[in-house]
Amino acid sequence: LLTAGASHGLDLALKHLTQPGDTILLEDPTYFLALDIVRDYDVRVVPVPVDEHGLDVEALERSLREHQPRLLYTIPIWHNPTGATLPVARRRRLIELARAYDIIIVADEVYQMLGDADHTPPPLSTFGRDRVLSLGSFSKILAPGLRLGWIECSDRYMAKLARDGVLVSGGAMNTLVTAIAQSALELGIQDQYLETMRELYARRRRCMVRQLKASLSDGIHITEPHGGFFVWLELPEDVEVDALIADARDAGLLLKSGARFSPDSRPKSRTANGLRLCFACHSETRIREGCERLSQVLRRHVRG
Amino acid sequence: LLTAGASHGLDLALKHLTQPGDTILLEDPTYFLALDIVRDYDVRVVPVPVDEHGLDVEALERSLREHQPRLLYTIPIWHNPTGATLPVARRRRLIELARAYDIIIVADEVYQMLGDADHTPPPLSTFGRDRVLSLGSFSKILAPGLRLGWIECSDRYMAKLARDGVLVSGGAMNTLVTAIAQSALELGIQDQYLETMRELYARRRRCMVRQLKASLSDGIHITEPHGGFFVWLELPEDVEVDALIADARDAGLLLKSGARFSPDSRPKSRTANGLRLCFACHSETRIREGCERLSQVLRRHVRG
Repeated sequence: LLTAGASHGLDLALKHLTQPGDTILLEDPTYFLALDIVRDYDVRVVPVPVDEHGLDVEALERSLREHQPRLLYTIPIWHNPTGATLPVARRRRLIELARAYDIIIVADEVYQMLGDADHTPPPLSTFGRDRVLSLGSFSKILAPGLRLGWIECSDRYMAKLARDGVLVSGGAMNTLVTAIAQSALELGIQDQYLETMRELYARRRRCMVRQLKASLSDGIHITEPHGGFFVWLELPEDVEVDALIADARDAGLLLKSGARFSPDSRPKSRTANGLRLCFACHSETRIREGCERLSQVLRRHVRG
Repeated sequence: LLTAGASHGLDLALKHLTQPGDTILLEDPTYFLALDIVRDYDVRVVPVPVDEHGLDVEALERSLREHQPRLLYTIPIWHNPTGATLPVARRRRLIELARAYDIIIVADEVYQMLGDADHTPPPLSTFGRDRVLSLGSFSKILAPGLRLGWIECSDRYMAKLARDGVLVSGGAMNTLVTAIAQSALELGIQDQYLETMRELYARRRRCMVRQLKASLSDGIHITEPHGGFFVWLELPEDVEVDALIADARDAGLLLKSGARFSPDSRPKSRTANGLRLCFACHSETRIREGCERLSQVLRRHVRG
């Protein structure tokens, strides 16, 4: 099903596959704009922790037992914001749990094609197509301004989503752009461009990780993703993140606090002490310069 | 607020300005795709009749008193499907009632610019901007495939709509197409094209009305709109509309029964004996040919 991007895909899932009062599970941390989308629906949100390997499936099982949710929104590949990727064993377990507890998994897989091939597990639906709505997007592989994405799912869910009144009325959310993307696919432009971007993103990613590892002090944990757009820093608990972000702004760096990615409203969650760094849209020169400034700011806020 | 078309505008209004269980009022008949959009929401629908001058505002007042609705969806200009236009006096009364009974009016004004100027009243918001969300669309004045429209409303409603999670995430539903429309506006292409289309639609409209009046038997009522896309026929009560439509199909005519435009599920409403004829996308030659075939079919089904 064509959508106006992955966000619209999540919105359609919430609109047609949940009821007012349902409980849904969100990863903590999660894609921050997903929080805005979920807020438009009368659903109860329960956070589930993620670790360096993505969704914590044992914590998930406890939540499933306790809260009887209807739907889980998860980012199993090059997680936004943590960069983590769910290993095959956890993917299998996740599908088992979804079947056992009768939940729908909305899997945000927009970075699926944007990592090193030998570190990229198969999409989640490979392990159980019956439970998974996979969200994809041309925003990440062709151009964000297209606002074009897709949902890949079984006929059972597709039938409900395709009855959406706005989609029925217009045929699609953005027909002209769909035709452009179709041409890009048929002419091989998409494939070529994707290959170019994979290489570009990989260079930028390696540049950022190398730079951070060389310059950051010991108390800070850095993820080393093999794909996606993000590196995630975890700062020691005693760091005042808001003060740090204000200082960074003075140094010309715009940072987003981990709290913005958390569905947990408690002030001192572990997520709140994280920082998402995006390497996707900056040159290596700018990345090096940015990391250098960041390490200077961090040195003033983090005890070694 | 930019939308992915008027349908998406109605959807946003329902999503952000109604609550589950609310009552909303729909005209009978109304734009048939609006019925699909409303069905996606947990709202109770109450039909309000329209006559040859559009919404029956006295029947509306009875509904307002009886049902305490939250929102009215109305098509005040070159109504789809009836072609009727709400006169200024009814517009004033409608706004008075909206204020007295505290309802939101979603006014579908996509045909506002597509009629004879001296028969076109000012937009509904002219009479009370505080109560009206006006839906507009480039679909009708530039190209349907753009899927681009807008909502014009007061800040009070705008603030709620603009917080929509999907809009916040993407910035808009279709950014590229917005830039195309902006160029068409800035370069004067939109104005030129609108003038061309107004003249074209007017010629087709006059052609269809002339043809129908010359050939239809006495028992059939024909609206004579001064704009929009549609002429509406009302057939005598004893006509079997489904049999007529089947016969028309054999004659190469695709007709849509009035029942498809009715929020009233009762089988023998007055609306069900209507036929919507669209003159917008056919040449005058085809319109003449189509009306000729239609009058032959009608002669077999309508007693003179």
